[in-house]
Amino acid sequence: MPPFITFLSDYGHGDDFVGVCHAVVARIAPDARVIDITHGIERHDVRTGAMVLRNTLPFAPAGVHLAVVDPGVGAERRAVAVRCADEDRILVGPDNGLLSLAWEALGGPVEAVEIGRSPWRLEPVSATFHGRDIFAPVAARLAGGSALAEAGEPLDIEELVTLDVPRPRAEDDALVVHVVGIDRFGNLILDAVHDDLPGTGLRLGQPVELDLGDGDVVKAVFAVTFADVPAGGVILYEDAYRSLALAVNRGDAGLDLDLRRDHELRIRPA
Amino acid sequence: MPPFITFLSDYGHGDDFVGVCHAVVARIAPDARVIDITHGIERHDVRTGAMVLRNTLPFAPAGVHLAVVDPGVGAERRAVAVRCADEDRILVGPDNGLLSLAWEALGGPVEAVEIGRSPWRLEPVSATFHGRDIFAPVAARLAGGSALAEAGEPLDIEELVTLDVPRPRAEDDALVVHVVGIDRFGNLILDAVHDDLPGTGLRLGQPVELDLGDGDVVKAVFAVTFADVPAGGVILYEDAYRSLALAVNRGDAGLDLDLRRDHELRIRPA
Amino acid sequence: MPPFITFLSDYGHGDDFVGVCHAVVARIAPDARVIDITHGIERHDVRTGAMVLRNTLPFAPAGVHLAVVDPGVGAERRAVAVRCADEDRILVGPDNGLLSLAWEALGGPVEAVEIGRSPWRLEPVSATFHGRDIFAPVAARLAGGSALAEAGEPLDIEELVTLDVPRPRAEDDALVVHVVGIDRFGNLILDAVHDDLPGTGLRLGQPVELDLGDGDVVKAVFAVTFADVPAGGVILYEDAYRSLALAVNRGDAGLDLDLRRDHELRIRPA
Repeated sequence: MPPFITFLSDYGHGDDFVGVCHAVVARIAPDARVIDITHGIERHDVRTGAMVLRNTLPFAPAGVHLAVVDPGVGAERRAVAVRCADEDRILVGPDNGLLSLAWEALGGPVEAVEIGRSPWRLEPVSATFHGRDIFAPVAARLAGGSALAEAGEPLDIEELVTLDVPRPRAEDDALVVHVVGIDRFGNLILDAVHDDLPGTGLRLGQPVELDLGDGDVVKAVFAVTFADVPAGGVILYEDAYRSLALAVNRGDAGLDLDLRRDHELRIRPA
Repeated sequence: MPPFITFLSDYGHGDDFVGVCHAVVARIAPDARVIDITHGIERHDVRTGAMVLRNTLPFAPAGVHLAVVDPGVGAERRAVAVRCADEDRILVGPDNGLLSLAWEALGGPVEAVEIGRSPWRLEPVSATFHGRDIFAPVAARLAGGSALAEAGEPLDIEELVTLDVPRPRAEDDALVVHVVGIDRFGNLILDAVHDDLPGTGLRLGQPVELDLGDGDVVKAVFAVTFADVPAGGVILYEDAYRSLALAVNRGDAGLDLDLRRDHELRIRPA
Repeated sequence: MPPFITFLSDYGHGDDFVGVCHAVVARIAPDARVIDITHGIERHDVRTGAMVLRNTLPFAPAGVHLAVVDPGVGAERRAVAVRCADEDRILVGPDNGLLSLAWEALGGPVEAVEIGRSPWRLEPVSATFHGRDIFAPVAARLAGGSALAEAGEPLDIEELVTLDVPRPRAEDDALVVHVVGIDRFGNLILDAVHDDLPGTGLRLGQPVELDLGDGDVVKAVFAVTFADVPAGGVILYEDAYRSLALAVNRGDAGLDLDLRRDHELRIRPA
């Protein structure tokens, strides 16, 4: 089995940011295989990056997991490599919370190293592109078998930065939720999961009301999949990562409902 | 030679859909190599997906050919794996016509298996992301050498869904064609091919008229390549997949001629 | 170490152009590994392609470096493969200047071959997609170990096409520079480098004035990184490829300053 490096960032595909990181990895660890999780995270959107990382890494082979969404590059935020309990997976990236949901999902951190001054950095280190100069070379060396402890200075795992994420709450007869993501198809990912349902009166197969605020109430069905409603119908469903989500069958829920990230709405039985 | 999996979809690059499918493949078949044909198919555009697959697979190494454009995910459409006569290539995807132009181009289907309940599925299977939970794992197992017959239930190849595609027709003095695709450069791909030309009076190197409808007639040249006309000139040409196509030299034919997918136009000698 | 091919183009990710070139390479050189530098070069923007190639190749493993930004495809421009002095790297692409900044950065050209009629072409060669039919197969054969001299006809390196690029100039109290690129984050890349600074009075850590023309003067700081100014502040800095550049901390300099490619501006001490 070749060593695997997964790679997630907000670099997009329009520039050479992603490509040159691949190039750096190939020079250092020519046998490593890089799996691009996505580079479409909205610029500087650490929270979405953290959620996507948490969702997707369990589907990936164990290895080194490189992630860069780094609004504080060049400032004082730490750069870290963190070993998780599960399968000795190692996360590499800025210590701004981006990695924190993933390590929670992977058994918790068991060893952390500060890599801002790693001996494996590319010199001269640029002030603005640590993906290329610090994170990619460290990930490559680790994938090539070098020991985590040699990547930099030991760091107390208690000092690692964690992320606050929105949480749903029960209120009167409704579940109050927030839009935390929107995908290419316009599907709206909510902060609620299946375990938030008991006590809400929301039941699979039943009609629900979405109270979007300002008196705007939309009818929907709590269903399994898009085809459970006619074209144009709205469904509440459990998405592929087991989050509750909203979709319009053959439509675009983000556009059709005019909802954006962080919008708060109330869901109640109809 | 490593086992090859080609991968085409309408997933785009903004989300993690493509990446997590790569991750799933890597876990199951770590030595397989995945070649991304494109993930830029317009959302739910099964026909364009089918045409791109047909055009490109002959250039790819024989292997497993994964394709997902799947507006009916979670509804009753079948999921299939289909072995073709040519080189034992195996197509994997929804049975909605997406694969049908490719199997025609690859010698026809010789064995089909319904994989909706494949033993190789990832459990729990989500209702909305069969690319990750059914198609990618089945493709990976097949690339890893497992037998097609073990992928699911046998299916009569006569039951496979095929696709109707637009066809040009001769009418009076004109060849009546349709726009079936538009590429990044604004070049308009037509449904006609070289074999539709005899009897039309259209000859390479000669001027032609494009009757776009509503009295809108545009002068063009039936030429070999863009540089055969001045900048801004319109050419009718045979594209790299041997379809007739329209381009504007150093321009954007889609914008300049204001044509969209499915537009019907008449081509005649000038 | 597997043979590496890097690949840069203006093909974008919306179509199958990139994917089918990967497919062609995989058929010819199944063990070669392709690293996509970027395919987001603006359509036909040879100069930006040339600069990105020059910047990134030193970070990539030695190998074959395929690049296609080719407004003259099908016309008379030559197709070439060029061996560089450094590490025997081989550049493959159109002879329109696209490769010229890279070979300058890689020790200069030492052997050139015209490949327009290469015996390794895919027949029939299309008039419009030499990436697939000429450049990718030649790159693949070279990566597979075939000799450069066998790729086509020998070409005098003196005949290779080079590129004129904008250069900054000193004028009165100012350094006159040009915008040569804009990245995803809106950062503006200038044609000046660190060596252009002596004599200008511009000093790291000091305030500067950007005279954008038409009386529009903007305050900025010549700083190391974004975080050296408050959110919304403008910085002049040395970017990761050691070009001078302009950014707005947590903003988009291209939009905020309303500057485009080729804009000329004056920088002077404030």
